[in-house]
Amino acid sequence: MRIIVIGAKGDIGQAVCAELGARHELVMAGRSSGDLRVDIADRSSVEAMYANAGAVDAVVCTAGDVHFSPLADFTSEDFMSTLREKVMGQVNLVLAGLERLPDGGSFTLTSGILDREPIRTGASAATANGALGGFVKAAAIEMSRGLRVNVVSPGLLDVSAPKYGSWFPGHDPVSSRRVGLAYDKSVEGAATGQVIIVD
Amino acid sequence: MRIIVIGAKGDIGQAVCAELGARHELVMAGRSSGDLRVDIADRSSVEAMYANAGAVDAVVCTAGDVHFSPLADFTSEDFMSTLREKVMGQVNLVLAGLERLPDGGSFTLTSGILDREPIRTGASAATANGALGGFVKAAAIEMSRGLRVNVVSPGLLDVSAPKYGSWFPGHDPVSSRRVGLAYDKSVEGAATGQVIIVD
Repeated sequence: MRIIVIGAKGDIGQAVCAELGARHELVMAGRSSGDLRVDIADRSSVEAMYANAGAVDAVVCTAGDVHFSPLADFTSEDFMSTLREKVMGQVNLVLAGLERLPDGGSFTLTSGILDREPIRTGASAATANGALGGFVKAAAIEMSRGLRVNVVSPGLLDVSAPKYGSWFPGHDPVSSRRVGLAYDKSVEGAATGQVIIVD
Repeated sequence: MRIIVIGAKGDIGQAVCAELGARHELVMAGRSSGDLRVDIADRSSVEAMYANAGAVDAVVCTAGDVHFSPLADFTSEDFMSTLREKVMGQVNLVLAGLERLPDGGSFTLTSGILDREPIRTGASAATANGALGGFVKAAAIEMSRGLRVNVVSPGLLDVSAPKYGSWFPGHDPVSSRRVGLAYDKSVEGAATGQVIIVD
């Protein structure tokens, strides 16, 4: 398969590329690095990315900025930025890709653990994660031609723990290898409308 | 208690007022009717509503516009409008109300059934519902002074079925009385961080 990976340089993106890169041709995309540059919150940028990518069989997104803030300090602008980047950005990839993917193509998005196991400062992250779970469940029933959509919801990655672990008290990091496998389950498997949890 | 109900004129709002109005003082708010006018997607409008409402013990929101569209036809603008109105609008009520409510005050928001049982054209609705579930779970752990937040997730209401039932094939409408009770469970009960389902 030829697979476009948006957010390929992040910790999750690297786990995806390590797993899928061995068997598939990957096109890396990102805001500031990769074969293609894209701002997923901007639909026209997403359309341009697809136009430049050529034919792809599957789309994997591990991008989507989240703003963290104590609840009492959250401005509406900062909260909204998470909805625009992590939710609408990933939804844009699906909406703009529906007519571009071949029969049987798939979209695999990324949420995270914080709507199951919230942490302080994580209100907008939890909101975005819940949103993506609702989206894939509903979007899946309206897809034709065998198109599929799932979202992977990983816990804190082992490779991310040195940097972010102090924000996640008691969280047992998940292996990057298992996170990569979850994306493979979505891309090479047959599931659709699912939240694929890696705890 | 003195309770502000935003969206009081809608089908769910009327169910809430019928249940809570017997025992509590209600302040009705809405975009185009009620004691107070408010555009919940606009944080400054929400701040003005609170300033004009005087002291309230609890906030109930049954407002939040949703755009329905076949998935393949969804524009990013229309999808985003649901996130701004139904998600950010209700989140604004919480963010702006945190310092205004007295100890033990509560926020009760409204999602819906479409992230559990999706329908055609309901992708943004399902996204918003999932978002609100994630939000209350995370926001609840950061609230002090006994403040609480829940979201009620009702199925199609009996009184709404004549108008909207054809969009919900096979859905068994829920009684308005049971929907009103669910809001009472949140307002007069002690739960927090919960999705209160009325199926």
